[in-house]
Amino acid sequence: MKFIDLNCDMGESFGAYKLGMDEEVIKLITSANIACGFHAGDPNVMDQTVAMAKEFGVGVGVHMGYPDLHGFGRRDMDISKRDLVNYIIYQIGALEAFCRKHRVDIQHIKSHGSMGNMSYVNRNVAEAVVEAVSLVLPEAKLFVIEGTEVHKAAVEKGVSVVFEVFADRAYTKEGTLVSRKFPGAVIKNPDVAADNIVRMVIEGKAKTLDGDYIPMKADSVCVHGDTAGALEIVRRVKTRLDEAGVTVAPVGTWHK
Amino acid sequence: MKFIDLNCDMGESFGAYKLGMDEEVIKLITSANIACGFHAGDPNVMDQTVAMAKEFGVGVGVHMGYPDLHGFGRRDMDISKRDLVNYIIYQIGALEAFCRKHRVDIQHIKSHGSMGNMSYVNRNVAEAVVEAVSLVLPEAKLFVIEGTEVHKAAVEKGVSVVFEVFADRAYTKEGTLVSRKFPGAVIKNPDVAADNIVRMVIEGKAKTLDGDYIPMKADSVCVHGDTAGALEIVRRVKTRLDEAGVTVAPVGTWHK
Amino acid sequence: MKFIDLNCDMGESFGAYKLGMDEEVIKLITSANIACGFHAGDPNVMDQTVAMAKEFGVGVGVHMGYPDLHGFGRRDMDISKRDLVNYIIYQIGALEAFCRKHRVDIQHIKSHGSMGNMSYVNRNVAEAVVEAVSLVLPEAKLFVIEGTEVHKAAVEKGVSVVFEVFADRAYTKEGTLVSRKFPGAVIKNPDVAADNIVRMVIEGKAKTLDGDYIPMKADSVCVHGDTAGALEIVRRVKTRLDEAGVTVAPVGTWHK
Amino acid sequence: MKFIDLNCDMGESFGAYKLGMDEEVIKLITSANIACGFHAGDPNVMDQTVAMAKEFGVGVGVHMGYPDLHGFGRRDMDISKRDLVNYIIYQIGALEAFCRKHRVDIQHIKSHGSMGNMSYVNRNVAEAVVEAVSLVLPEAKLFVIEGTEVHKAAVEKGVSVVFEVFADRAYTKEGTLVSRKFPGAVIKNPDVAADNIVRMVIEGKAKTLDGDYIPMKADSVCVHGDTAGALEIVRRVKTRLDEAGVTVAPVGTWHK
Repeated sequence: MKFIDLNCDMGESFGAYKLGMDEEVIKLITSANIACGFHAGDPNVMDQTVAMAKEFGVGVGVHMGYPDLHGFGRRDMDISKRDLVNYIIYQIGALEAFCRKHRVDIQHIKSHGSMGNMSYVNRNVAEAVVEAVSLVLPEAKLFVIEGTEVHKAAVEKGVSVVFEVFADRAYTKEGTLVSRKFPGAVIKNPDVAADNIVRMVIEGKAKTLDGDYIPMKADSVCVHGDTAGALEIVRRVKTRLDEAGVTVAPVGTWHK
Repeated sequence: MKFIDLNCDMGESFGAYKLGMDEEVIKLITSANIACGFHAGDPNVMDQTVAMAKEFGVGVGVHMGYPDLHGFGRRDMDISKRDLVNYIIYQIGALEAFCRKHRVDIQHIKSHGSMGNMSYVNRNVAEAVVEAVSLVLPEAKLFVIEGTEVHKAAVEKGVSVVFEVFADRAYTKEGTLVSRKFPGAVIKNPDVAADNIVRMVIEGKAKTLDGDYIPMKADSVCVHGDTAGALEIVRRVKTRLDEAGVTVAPVGTWHK
Repeated sequence: MKFIDLNCDMGESFGAYKLGMDEEVIKLITSANIACGFHAGDPNVMDQTVAMAKEFGVGVGVHMGYPDLHGFGRRDMDISKRDLVNYIIYQIGALEAFCRKHRVDIQHIKSHGSMGNMSYVNRNVAEAVVEAVSLVLPEAKLFVIEGTEVHKAAVEKGVSVVFEVFADRAYTKEGTLVSRKFPGAVIKNPDVAADNIVRMVIEGKAKTLDGDYIPMKADSVCVHGDTAGALEIVRRVKTRLDEAGVTVAPVGTWHK
Repeated sequence: MKFIDLNCDMGESFGAYKLGMDEEVIKLITSANIACGFHAGDPNVMDQTVAMAKEFGVGVGVHMGYPDLHGFGRRDMDISKRDLVNYIIYQIGALEAFCRKHRVDIQHIKSHGSMGNMSYVNRNVAEAVVEAVSLVLPEAKLFVIEGTEVHKAAVEKGVSVVFEVFADRAYTKEGTLVSRKFPGAVIKNPDVAADNIVRMVIEGKAKTLDGDYIPMKADSVCVHGDTAGALEIVRRVKTRLDEAGVTVAPVGTWHK
């Protein structure tokens, strides 16, 4: 029996500012990556988002970012390993407290934006992420792309990983994401996105931007819920996975 | 056998900014109120302060404040109860994560600055503090002044309280602190401070600014460590308590 | 010949967060109150909003607020007069620099949210606002409600004032706004709003919630542009003022 | 007749946090680089520091930084040119307003920390700094190191520059500062520092870490005032310059 998880960034609103269509997307996904107040999110939003995830049976995850609300955590910052470990621990704890209130466990953890990108290629960031997880959230599953620095660091530290793939992004033949700077990097056609995901889950391989096929492990599919088009992709992916007999469920319920 | 706890605000440095003489005062006190990044403190400082408290056998406490770094949490803010509950939960969780890293438990919780002052007299703030504690930190002891709103709210919710007295502040005949606006509000003479504290602990009564004596319960004495004069008061108070046969120890180790 | 100004809060977006329909409302109004980064807005948004105001011939105004992005400047903060004066000077300067870049002058200044509300009733806040204006922006017109503390303070200091009325709010018989807590406080019917405004401008009197008429000076009408309903009110008000032969123009172009 | 300017970072305190010995160093220097609230400083501190600079006849300068209070502006951030230009304009305006209050002109402008370092080597940052200055502060002098990217960009845009040298730092044979990672990078001996500065000013050459001599233009000497040792260097440098017949005065008073 095949399983797959659908994860989406959630809880990115802040104060008077609303971002994303969380109320819609929560019905479609199985894991929520919840912002923790550094790059987005605030205590009220965290509280509501954890409550909503619990209500819909969606797995709760820490979505930690750089301390840069204005840049939405998407700008690289040259943060020391010690600072980064402590920033992550702080954010884990903050979300953990709302989980305690709502009596749910944290299922997973995933770096946001530039921290995520850097964790793929920068050993220092990768080690900081893994160290923070192993110190204070060892029972959670860390979302990684196979073969990246953060994957290697997690294996070394014995941190449990989940392989993540992206519904709306094209892949290079090395198995990395095509940079958004290049044409074709972002997939907007729901059918193409759904084809790619079903292929990864059923056949274990991805079609690259050049038309080749490469091996690709997929435990969780990253989807977006911030536009109507993004929601349409999620719906199509989910329908096609259902049709293919794949069970869509929170990764914490089936991943060994 | 008489016991008393000595508590002090700690971990108030931030980034390049250093505040307080934590390395000195940690040797004299038994409970550390640790700032959580809203009014003061940062993830690095929290990490170091929890480590230091553990090393010296000092009880760790959440010292939550208003989200106002520039005002150091000393300015009143008209925050809704819902916002305040979530701000406190967030700060509790952040400190809790560093405690998990260092394998220590949170012993107590105390509101900082204006939040503390308002919790004495404002029902809304008092209930927010107590609600947050009962939701996510029910095992911790809440520092209160006897008879205040936060004391009443804690009793109603069944939250365990510790009665706090102040070494360097004068009392009114109602048992509240004399406002800093009035002469004599702040006690600078170490002997006077020590006399007052010993009287409270041994005889259970406080001498008011007018020279009267009123009943006063004392489980923990709030001291300061930000000036040489403050440290001198701590030393004198501790010496006099020792001489009087009172055991100075973390409140979590002896308070029922 | 009768003149009136239509003012609206603008430039309240922040980083990845978008707020308001500035591109629509700018075509309807004559004065823009531009957020300066304390309660809302950021340097990029300030730059764009000043550019847009210039393009559409709309008067540029400082819209300063409390340093509380999370509360959107709507929560009262107990800020000392000295702090407040300096916070306002800082925000004036920041907007002034973008005006220098775009070669436009600052026409007016208006306090946002809780600072505005407090300036009506709190002498300390009123004096802080007036002092900051008189120190660094003496040529600008300060928006006030007639008879409030900030009006009195401005008169004393010789600061030029503009009398502001509100299109979507009901008035008490004392000439103040009915609190949002009471039914009828907010006017949602565009015709009622337009009737009220035309009456104020042409006849110089307002109809109160109780149905009485009171004298009311009106130089500028505050409108909102954050919802479709709000925009509809602006359009109706503007149409009705045109029909009544009132010239709608930036207050700086006609106010003595 | 030889002239030289002595500049120092000032106004880096924030709220309850005090940094630097501004009251001492202001008596020794001729130009103050004043933090503008992004990496350090706050509106109250800016107000006081401008007042103090005026009182002591010290030239006032904008010391803008990255929006990173926790990292004190010392961490590189990958900020787009547009964002950076607007961040700098915002900070210039904020300081300008306090100068208007105190009726002094801004004499110079200097990038702080990582922004400064990047402006030497990164074309994007260099152009952002120069663009902001040319847009809103064209009359001010921009502090640069000769031959760096920011110097080149300033020459292209016609922005007036001042050549800065460092009293307590060793130079490479290329004329750049030796990285703090290497031994000998920081000069702690006041006599060595004073020798170097006098040589640069009188002879127009610097002694490198390797003992060679290279040409070096010096209009302003950067000194520090945050430790007793730093102040001792400033005093020695000043005394030695006086003895050598060099006039120490604000760069705005003598620089063409």
